[in-house]
Formats: sequence, structure tokens, C-alpha cells
Amino acid sequence: MTLPMIKTYMKYLLILATLLMVPLGALYSQDHTKSKLTSYVNPFIGTGAVAASLSGNNYPGATVPFGMIQLSPDTRNAPDWAQASGYDYNDKSIFGFSHTHLSGTGVAEFFDVLLMPVTGDIAINKDVTSDSMEGWQSAFSHDNEKAHPGYYQVNLSRYNINAELTATTHAGFHRYTFPKNQQPRVVLDLNHSLNKNSWSTRIINSQIKIIDQYTIEGYRLITGWAKLRKVYFYAKFSKPIVGNKMVDGNTTYSNNWVVNGSDLRAILDFENKNNSPLLIKVGLSSVSSQNAKLNLDTEIRDWNFNKVVADADNVWEKELSKIKIEGTDLQKEIFYTSLYHVSVQPNTMSDVNGEYTDIDYTKRSLSEKEGKQYSTFSLWDTYRAAHPLYTLLQPERTSDFINSMLRQYDAYGYLPIWQLWGQENYCMIGNHSIPVIVDAALKGLKGFDVERAYEAIKTSSMTPHLNSPFDVWEKYGYMPENLQSQSVSITLEIAYDDWCVAQLAKKLGKEEDYNHFTKRSLFYKNLYNSQSGFFQSKNDKGNWIEPFDPFKYGSNGGYPFTEGNAWQYFWYVPHDVNTLVKMVGGDKAFTKKLDDFFTLEHQSGELNDNASGFIGQYAHGNEPSHHVAYLYNYAGQPWKTQYYVSKILTELYNNTSAGYAGNDDCGEMSAWYVLSSIGFYPVNPANGIFVIGTPHLESASIELLSGKTFKILAQKQSPKDIYIQSASLNGKKYDQTYITYNDIVNGGTLEFKMGSKPSKWGSKPQNIPPDGI
Amino acid sequence: MTLPMIKTYMKYLLILATLLMVPLGALYSQDHTKSKLTSYVNPFIGTGAVAASLSGNNYPGATVPFGMIQLSPDTRNAPDWAQASGYDYNDKSIFGFSHTHLSGTGVAEFFDVLLMPVTGDIAINKDVTSDSMEGWQSAFSHDNEKAHPGYYQVNLSRYNINAELTATTHAGFHRYTFPKNQQPRVVLDLNHSLNKNSWSTRIINSQIKIIDQYTIEGYRLITGWAKLRKVYFYAKFSKPIVGNKMVDGNTTYSNNWVVNGSDLRAILDFENKNNSPLLIKVGLSSVSSQNAKLNLDTEIRDWNFNKVVADADNVWEKELSKIKIEGTDLQKEIFYTSLYHVSVQPNTMSDVNGEYTDIDYTKRSLSEKEGKQYSTFSLWDTYRAAHPLYTLLQPERTSDFINSMLRQYDAYGYLPIWQLWGQENYCMIGNHSIPVIVDAALKGLKGFDVERAYEAIKTSSMTPHLNSPFDVWEKYGYMPENLQSQSVSITLEIAYDDWCVAQLAKKLGKEEDYNHFTKRSLFYKNLYNSQSGFFQSKNDKGNWIEPFDPFKYGSNGGYPFTEGNAWQYFWYVPHDVNTLVKMVGGDKAFTKKLDDFFTLEHQSGELNDNASGFIGQYAHGNEPSHHVAYLYNYAGQPWKTQYYVSKILTELYNNTSAGYAGNDDCGEMSAWYVLSSIGFYPVNPANGIFVIGTPHLESASIELLSGKTFKILAQKQSPKDIYIQSASLNGKKYDQTYITYNDIVNGGTLEFKMGSKPSKWGSKPQNIPPDGI
Repeated sequence: MTLPMIKTYMKYLLILATLLMVPLGALYSQDHTKSKLTSYVNPFIGTGAVAASLSGNNYPGATVPFGMIQLSPDTRNAPDWAQASGYDYNDKSIFGFSHTHLSGTGVAEFFDVLLMPVTGDIAINKDVTSDSMEGWQSAFSHDNEKAHPGYYQVNLSRYNINAELTATTHAGFHRYTFPKNQQPRVVLDLNHSLNKNSWSTRIINSQIKIIDQYTIEGYRLITGWAKLRKVYFYAKFSKPIVGNKMVDGNTTYSNNWVVNGSDLRAILDFENKNNSPLLIKVGLSSVSSQNAKLNLDTEIRDWNFNKVVADADNVWEKELSKIKIEGTDLQKEIFYTSLYHVSVQPNTMSDVNGEYTDIDYTKRSLSEKEGKQYSTFSLWDTYRAAHPLYTLLQPERTSDFINSMLRQYDAYGYLPIWQLWGQENYCMIGNHSIPVIVDAALKGLKGFDVERAYEAIKTSSMTPHLNSPFDVWEKYGYMPENLQSQSVSITLEIAYDDWCVAQLAKKLGKEEDYNHFTKRSLFYKNLYNSQSGFFQSKNDKGNWIEPFDPFKYGSNGGYPFTEGNAWQYFWYVPHDVNTLVKMVGGDKAFTKKLDDFFTLEHQSGELNDNASGFIGQYAHGNEPSHHVAYLYNYAGQPWKTQYYVSKILTELYNNTSAGYAGNDDCGEMSAWYVLSSIGFYPVNPANGIFVIGTPHLESASIELLSGKTFKILAQKQSPKDIYIQSASLNGKKYDQTYITYNDIVNGGTLEFKMGSKPSKWGSKPQNIPPDGI
Repeated sequence: MTLPMIKTYMKYLLILATLLMVPLGALYSQDHTKSKLTSYVNPFIGTGAVAASLSGNNYPGATVPFGMIQLSPDTRNAPDWAQASGYDYNDKSIFGFSHTHLSGTGVAEFFDVLLMPVTGDIAINKDVTSDSMEGWQSAFSHDNEKAHPGYYQVNLSRYNINAELTATTHAGFHRYTFPKNQQPRVVLDLNHSLNKNSWSTRIINSQIKIIDQYTIEGYRLITGWAKLRKVYFYAKFSKPIVGNKMVDGNTTYSNNWVVNGSDLRAILDFENKNNSPLLIKVGLSSVSSQNAKLNLDTEIRDWNFNKVVADADNVWEKELSKIKIEGTDLQKEIFYTSLYHVSVQPNTMSDVNGEYTDIDYTKRSLSEKEGKQYSTFSLWDTYRAAHPLYTLLQPERTSDFINSMLRQYDAYGYLPIWQLWGQENYCMIGNHSIPVIVDAALKGLKGFDVERAYEAIKTSSMTPHLNSPFDVWEKYGYMPENLQSQSVSITLEIAYDDWCVAQLAKKLGKEEDYNHFTKRSLFYKNLYNSQSGFFQSKNDKGNWIEPFDPFKYGSNGGYPFTEGNAWQYFWYVPHDVNTLVKMVGGDKAFTKKLDDFFTLEHQSGELNDNASGFIGQYAHGNEPSHHVAYLYNYAGQPWKTQYYVSKILTELYNNTSAGYAGNDDCGEMSAWYVLSSIGFYPVNPANGIFVIGTPHLESASIELLSGKTFKILAQKQSPKDIYIQSASLNGKKYDQTYITYNDIVNGGTLEFKMGSKPSKWGSKPQNIPPDGI
């Protein structure tokens, strides 16, 4: 998703360029036995672009599943969109280790409470930039860097300090080994943030306070991509602080105990009686320093760094074990790293006592029964595949996710569009909490009040808000571009959200609502121009806006299409693909159009920054294309689905730092890989149907919470055997090109015979139903 | 105090200019019987400058003593420093009525939740300026405007709407009478604020939510002079809302129920079945909309507007009755308006349930026993006279004030410098919570923990922070200008604060601390240049910084003097005046220097914006001069104190909109008047001594909480009898030129015989002791 403001070019060189990359395989832990699934996770995948390509914008640091803490190195002092995770594999220096990071976003945010071990005299009151070594940053080499789930290690070569990081849900744990006889020092930077020129970012206020020789606490309030984030911390050190400098902008205080300001840094000197490593434990909270302390004290009671590493490894092993696969080591590396990436967020927002700062800046408290509060909902991305995957792997967390979204509704009046540290940032378009909630409700997931959820999705679909002018929607039956920019994309996406509302209305017996939202779900037809064969924009007079160029890109406003072109958005009718097929003239015309889509190389003007990972007009680097390869199934040519899905799996994912064709987008690119490599994908993410692509792996077993297992087997003689020859479900011949959620959760085995040539399997005229539950 | 950035000139024309003003006497309530003291309060005093002068920057709106709510008209859309209260008597239009205002500050702030009754079609999505009538503002005339304590009324001539306002501690109450058969409408503006070009002011986020036809709630987070203010509101209407428009920047929604954004306005249409007035009740809170509702429901239970007006009048009557005076109507008007102005702040910060948002942005809750939380501490101003006056009139609130300050210390590490809506803004210099706390402690006021208070004042005096680099202070024995700008002013003021610390240390038996802080309290001597006879700046090498010009002004940084010149700051040794007298060569040289001060008209370069109300170099418009007229007493010429105090009382205060010679500064200018007109002033605001000036009133009775009364009588034949001929205390001849706090609280009568010629009373060699308790 979005990469605002700055433009890059020639992203379609990605595939070629990745071939030139040094593989990262050598970098991950050699001492980590391959008997564990965590040993296949390579946190460096997606951490660095090549040439002008995008990377996944992932970070390599330490985190536990869905944690609040992502303790990871920052290779820029002021990360921008191209280093949105804080870390760029191409960078040569590290500025420190901050405790919060986003995985795969197109906007940089978080980077809270940066610590950096140093020695010697270090200037901390100067502006430091990536290009200068005037600050405290250190060069580092990937040769002396290692990461696996819940653990990161690097040698900071400027100081010859070995830095190791691990994490629990609410706390980070640092182990810094200094050279002998060097005074251990640690820089604390509370002004470290995304580039201050972006999103009007600035520190509103912050504090560093030394509680005793072993303890500091503080906070910062920052405005940026999230309108306001309150971040409190509480840190314990294994050695006493014997001196300090505190800096507030241009003012330096020596051996002070507290400093308040909006440009705070400190350098802490530690006793060096022996050469044991300096250990630092840091708890965070959105509520108070007191809660940060409680979080820390609850989760890391002693000073056993290795135990916290082992605990993190174990919790990751448990998460990853939810899908057991067989395949090549490369496949396992990409697969489990993808599963890892999809499981690092949404992030825990509530403290161990259930308190959190709500979207309206009040303190809220959840009982144990009410569950946990989560945030980091990159919904325009993650509703497509990540959330459907969570319904299989994280049914209990899914209810917490949904209850968290409903709490935004309670305070804000509508459900999240993109929620970050509890704050709505309105990134992208649509209201894709709705498919997430409806999907879970229709699948019968427990733990949330479906009637209340329905009220929330209906109200969110009737209350006009930014990029969702429902009054305009109902008046015109489409979004007129002169009244609402990005009108075609919004029309298509809201029509889909409306279909979702209708389905839940139907289930709850709300016939009037069902009719109303079903009618709205068909508004997409009002922008179909049968002359051009594309969805096009109209003005409020009902006239097509000319000239129309289906190759021309829009970004995030000012054009009818969002981060894409008319070709890419043509396919966005996931709830009514069969009608879409008919609209263009039936199966043949539809597959012809798909063929064109995957082969036309034409470009008009500049690409959007997010468009990358091209196959013709298909751009795997951004989400609007993600379901398109699966659409051949709807028109009797499943072998072409198999061809393109296989091509994407093998060519647009790899195990280098540029392992993704575009931003991972909080695990969405990863979720596509996890599901597609198993063999299916939710073209409509809320209808309980997974459309079959091509099983990429020898086998995959989904271990369900119920104790049941759903196994996908693919008999292949060679990697070229990408085409399904036949299939069976639980031993019975299976000719449908989709399976349902119920098929999966009931447990069983789906077995494919594969071959190197397209077969007639699944090509008989058939309709994939609009509703699989 | 401060008027940043914008410069005005020729402020010394004030006295002349005020003579040209239309007196406001005619404007205040004629139907308000003079039997009540509230009838003497004229809230229009201080609300408007003349020519290039300053006004008091007071507001005329409705408030109750020390309340959270100041419901008052705003005559600018984006008030700046010269309309810091929101209202300028010279302005011709009103933009609406917002619920929070500052009285007399030099920076504009607050202006929360603006409501404006309108009729007809009004554009609310355009930027409105004072100069254009494109917005919703209305012209008004002072002929159709009225105010008395707790009540304000104006006719909005554009609409012919009569608007009336009243208030309780936490809630505002509006009564809008619309013309017959006109659709009642109300504009709600959440983006109304100080000028957005000042203090990086912007709305971080805000919300308007319609709860039901009679109820709205919402909030705004704003960054400005206060780093972050959370302001929640809850509003009830007496008529149903029948339609609305909500505007977020350039987007308008019709009949929506919620809007979130950073540029929010709404226009609400109300039913008009009969022509009864529209009543609106609004509760505020720093914690939550829920608390705003609780505040409102607790304080205004029904729709009886007149009863709330009467209640407000009664609570004011009770406050004003604490000093009963006899004198001319003009004297009473100025006196009771001054007493009113000194009693509108500090402002209540905690909600009725004891909750408030603390300085560290956490929610804190006070038990009933812990009292109330207050904010709006303009301490550089108010420690001089307002707080000493509060120790007499508000002993119980004083302990709440102090506990409120101590809670800043708990979270922030040091006591308030200038606290606004719970936020430290570091305005001005020194740490003048210290004299406030020490004064109360030495006077034996109850309700706070003196040991804890001592810890707070000591720590605040040892912890370097903005403009208080105590490490530098202790190293050099003065503030070197090259290390800390405003060095002379800061040296003088911190030396005084240190004296205060020493006194409390002494009382608590902390001898080492007493010695340490006593030593620091004499650091002022290190900047006395006996060659020039002035306090001058040195650099860190100990060299005088040349050239030196005692007439040259500094502002708030970049020069050794703060909002003043060396002449004005020469007198700032309130804890050691007797030594100061000796330093310049004894009584004669000292009184000669005072004579020069009050007569020298020379000016070098530009004046500071705050310097106004001149008598020679004396500038009554700003606080550094405030004690100087009383210093003649220390050198045996009390008749000159009597002369200048009388001159200031009569010439630099009046009952026009320009009734003050400068900003009222949260009641400090008023407190000077209240005390000086009674007859004395606390030259050292923490030593329990009030230095006698000249009684301006026929009599004044201070009604103490204990039930005792202290009465000051002045037998005068004519207004020219400004000179004390003789005095008696409780019937005994009294020749000292000061009285003590204990004299007052023990009750009694201080009686003066006055005459038109200077007498020898009080001129015998005597020392006013440095400590009166």
C-alpha cells in the first residue's frame, strides 16, 4: 500500500534485479538446529530493496507473535517510507535499537525509545544523519549479524560491541557486550522518529527520569502518521548508572536525574567493575510508566537473557507449527518466514493489566474476559488474505481483533480503516474491517457479539467519513469523481464491503438491510463502460470523464484509481465474479482479457510507487492485483491460474533481502504466499471459499485449534509439475476448483496429482458460488 | 508578563490615552442593586486597549471563582497576544462564545468549544477572518451588552439574537433568544483557537458526536502554548436538533451523527415550535466526555438559567465579601473588579469525581480528602501579590494550589514555572512556586505536607531545567550571560527563590541546607557593578559584558534582562533590601536612586512590549517594577512611597476597558490594586511582612476564615490626603512602616490619620526586618 509523495521509477526491473542479489541463506543462524521450524525463518528476507525496487520493508529484529514490542536495529536516524521498518539491508550503519517497528508498511512509524551502546566520547547534541559519522552510529557488517525469531545479534564495528536483542510481548531485553576495559555507555534517544518532514511529525513532549542507579523511566508523546501516540517506558539495567548527560535540544545537563522536553537524548555511563555484559530490560505501555513497569516486571522477572530468547523461540515454534509443510529448504525458508511475517501483527495494545489508551485518548480497562486490545490494522491490505488465514490459525485472537475494532466503533463512530497504536490514520480506501468481521461471523467464530458487530458494520456503512461519503454513494449509485476522488476504486471496494454487510444482514434475518446493501453491492455496475470494457469514472452528471487511459496510474487521490490503473482495478468484483465474466461477454472474452492483463507491457506516464512485481499489467507488489491470477478458475481455465500462481510463487518471492515484490504490508504479501503455496486463496475474503491455485509444496498440514488436521498433498515428479491433473478430497474425486472453510475446519486430506502439462481438471463449465458457508 | 514576538510602541502614552476612553460605568447592570458587592464588579474593565497601549487582556464573560469554565465572547476568529482573553473592547463583531479563557495573560490560549447562535444560511466551511463578514460572526454594540459576575449578555445585531451566558465551576449555560419565526441554528467550532501561526498551534484530533436529538459530545486535542490539552465536552440542548451540517476541512456532511478530524465545525438546526429561547448546557473535562457529562449533570440539573445566574452571583458575593470596603463608587468599582479578577484563577482542573489529566498525560484521581486539582499558575506574576493575598482570603484553596503544584513535581521532577491546563510552558523565569509554597508553610497554612513540600522545593532548586541551570549557578555563583541568557534577571530572581528555600530549611531544622541556600541567595551580589551602580551581566570568565546601557530593554531571551531594563531590575533583591540600600551607599543614595528611577524619562532603543504604565523608568504595566514604590520605606522616606503608590492607584487604574496599565496577568495587577488600596504590599512575598503604602480607601475589613476581622481605617478630609500623619494598631500608636501577616490574622484595627502634606511618620531610622514570622 501507500508510499506517499516520493516517486521512484522502473520498479518492473525487480525480478531481474533480485537475481543479482546476494542470497541471505548464509546469514541465518547456523547453530540453530533445523529440527525446529523457527530455524527456517530468515528475518532478513524483505529487509532491503535492490536497485530501484521495493523491498518488503520488513525488520530483522526481535519480536514475539502479535507483540507490542519489535526490538530492532534502525539503520537511519530518520527513516522515511523506503525504510519504513527502520532497517535497510543496503545501509552500512546502525543508529541504535528502538522498541517498536512496523513490518512492511509504506509509511515509516514507531521507532520508540532508541538505545545504542557506545564507548568513548560521543556527541549526542548534534543532528546526526545517515551520511555523517558525527553522531553515535556504528558501521556494521552482515557477516557479523544474525537473527532468528525472537533474537537479533550484531557486532557494532565502530565500538566492537556485540549487541543482542530479544523480546516478550510488552518488553525488550538487550545484552550488550563491550570490549574489555571500556566504559560502557548507552545513548537513549527519545527524538528518534520517522523523518520530521513527513506527516507533520514532531515530539509534543517527552521525559527521561532516573529513578535509581539501575532504573530509568519516561515517555514521549509524538504526532505523526498516527495523530498522537503516548509511549511510556520503564527500563532496568544490570549495572549501576555512574554518570549521565541529558540533552534537551541545544542544552546539555551533566548528571541530572530528569529532563523534560521535545528533543531529548541522554547518554548513560555504567559501572565497569567486571567485563560482564550490560543487560537492559525495557517495558512499554500506552498508558503510564507505572504500567510499563508492571508489563516489564510481569514478563521478565530476572536477568536470564538466554531464557527469554528460548521462551521467544518456543512461542514462535508453537505458532509456526500450526502449519507443517514438506518441501525444499528454500520453500521452507520462504514459507516459514512468510508465516512469521504474517504473525508479527496486529500488535498487542493493552497492558498486562488490561489497560490501554483508547482512540479518544481516554484510559480504558479490559477485564480478562474481554480479552486483549490489538492495534496495527493495515486493513486495506490484510483483509484479503491475512485475516482469512487468521480465521484458520488464530480463531481466538481473531475475536480479540474484532472486539478491538468494535471498540474503535464505540468511541469513533465507525470501524477502523487503518489503525495504528490505537489511532485511525485513514490510510487507503474502503472500510475493510467489514469483510474481516463478516468473514469471522459467517464462519461462526466465537468471542464477539455478532449483533453488536452488525450494528457496527451497518453504522460504519451509513456514516459518511473520510473517503466514504455514503450520502453521495446512496444518492448517485456510484462515487462521482468530482465529488469524491479515487472514485472508481472506492466504488468497487465499497460495493464489496456492502455485499459483506448484506451477507451478515441475511444471516441475522434483517431482510430490509439485506436488500438495501445488496442493492448497493451492485453499484459497481454503474461505472462499467461496456464501450471500453473497463470501470471508468463518471462525474455527478452521470457523464464519463474523458480522456480515459486504462494504463494510466493514480496514487492516493486526484485520480479515479488508487495506487493502480483501470486494468488492475477491472477485476475488483470479488463478490460477483460470475457477473463480471458475463459483463465482458462470457468465459472466452473474460479469459482473453485476463491473458491480455498478464501480457500487456504498455505503460502510460509514471507508475505508482507501489506498483511493482509486474507480469504484464499484473503488479504483485500491490494488493489490487492479488486475487487476479485466481480468476481464470471462474471461466474454465484453471491451468492458467496454476501457471500464473506458480510463476508468482517462484519468481516474485525469494529468500533475499528483496524477497518480496513490494511492501509486505503487515504480512499481506506473506499471507498470499502462505495460502497460495498451500494451494488456495480467498478471492472473496468473506465468503468462506478458497479458490484453488496450485500446490507449491509437497505437503502442508494445517493444525486446527480443534485438534483436527487438514492436509494438502501434491504428488510432483519435478518442480515443473505445476499443473493439477486430478484431485481428491478425503479420498473422493474432487473436481471443484475451490474448497470451503468448512471443508478445512472439518479436517481431512486434499490430494492433488500434478503434472508438467495443463490438464482438463476443473475446466468443465461450473460456477464458483458467491457464498461458501 | 510576556507578549512575544510582536512589538508595539509608545506604551507610555497609556495614561493620557485612557483619559480619552469612554468610561464603562454606563455599561454594567443598572438593574443590579448596589446593595450587593457583585454590583460593583465591572467585567469590562481591562477588556480593551486604547491607541497603542495594552489592556488588561481580561474577558467580560461568565465564570465562577476559580472555575474551569470561563464562558465568554470571542471577538476574533484567531485571537493573538493582544486579544489574549479572546475579547477586545475595540472590536466590532463576535465570532461566538467559547468556554475557556485566560484572564490577563500575554499569550492567547484556551477558547475551547465555541458556540454561536445564528439564523439563515451561514457558510461554516470557509476561513473566516475578523475583517470579513463571510463567516458567521455578528456585529454587536456595547449599548446592547451587559455583564456582571457569572453573567454576560449581548445582542448579536446581525441576527437580532439575544445571547446570555452563565456558568458553574465545570459547566457553561447559554440562553439564546432568536427572533420569532426564525429557524434557530447554532455553530459549533472545534478549530477555534489562538492564531495558528503562534506556538505551532494545531488541532491534533477532534470529534463531534450527536448522542441523541438533545445531546452532543466530543473533544479536541490541541497543541499550542500548552504542549497538549485534551478538552472533552458534553452538551445538552433544550430543543431537539432537527438537522445538521458537519464540516471537516473542505468536506461537508449533511445530517451526519459523528465527525472526526482536525478542522471540525458543525451547524445545528433546532426545532422552532414555539419562540422560547434555546438553552444549552455544556460540561467540560480534561479526562473524558463521560466526565464532562458527570460534571454537567452534577452542577446543572435542570433548565433554570436564572437560578444558575443567581447561584453564580451568590458565590461571587461570598468571595467578594471577604473584603468589605468603604470608599467612592469609583473606588469600589475598581476594587471589587480587581478582587473579582484575582479570584477567577487558578482554574479548577479536576472533575467533580476528582479525576484529571496529569502533566504526564496519565489519568489521576484525587480522593475527596486530597482536595481539588488546580492549574493556570502564572507564577512569575502571581507569586508577588496574588498568592500572598490568597493566604489571607483563600487559605483552604491555597493548600489545594500547593498540592496541585506538588503533583507536578511528582511527575515532572520540578515545580511549576507557568502551568496551563496542567501543562508546563516554562513561560518567564525563576521558580516562583517556591515563594508561594514557602510563604504558606511559614505562615502555618494547613492542608499540605511541609516535609514533602520542602523536598519538592529543594529538588526543584537542584535539578537543572529550562532557564534554571543550577549546575551553572553553583559553579559560577551567578548566571553567565554566554551560558544562560536573561542572566541578570535570572540571577536576581533565583537568588530570591534560594532565600525562600533557606527559610523553610531553617524552619525544618535543616541547617546544612539553610547554609547552602543562604549562600546561594547572596549570589545576586556577584553581578553588582559598584562602578555603574547596577546589576550587570558577566560572561563565564567573570568579565562584565560591555557595552552596558541601563535603559536598554530585553525581552524573553538574548539579553541579560527579561522584559525590562537594568533600571527596573536593579530593585529585585526583595529578601535583602537593607543590604541593597547599603550597597548603593546608604539611605540617601538609595532614595536618590529611587527618585531618579521615578523621574528619568530616557529611552534607549525599543521598549519591551510589556513595559507600559510609566512613571519615569517605573513601568507598572509589568511585574518587575511592582514592589519598587514601596522601597522608600526601607530608607526613611515613606512619604515618597505614599506619593507614588497613590499616584499609581489613581492614575494607572481606572474603570474603562483600558483600566489596567498592562496585562492583568492572571490577577496580579489586580492583586497589586487590592492590597495597595487597602494600604500595604508584600515587597518580599514570602516573609510575612506587608509594607505599608498609603490607604486609598476610607476603610477596608478583611473577613478572615477564622471569623476574625482585620480593619484598616483611613481618616481623610479630601482625596488629596494621601500622606500618613500617624497610625495606630488596635489603639496603640504604630510607627513601623510595615505590618505582619500575624498582625492581620490575629484580627484588629489599623487606623491611619491622613493629610495632604508629607509627615515624619515612619521616617525614623529603622530596619524593616527580612523576616516577619
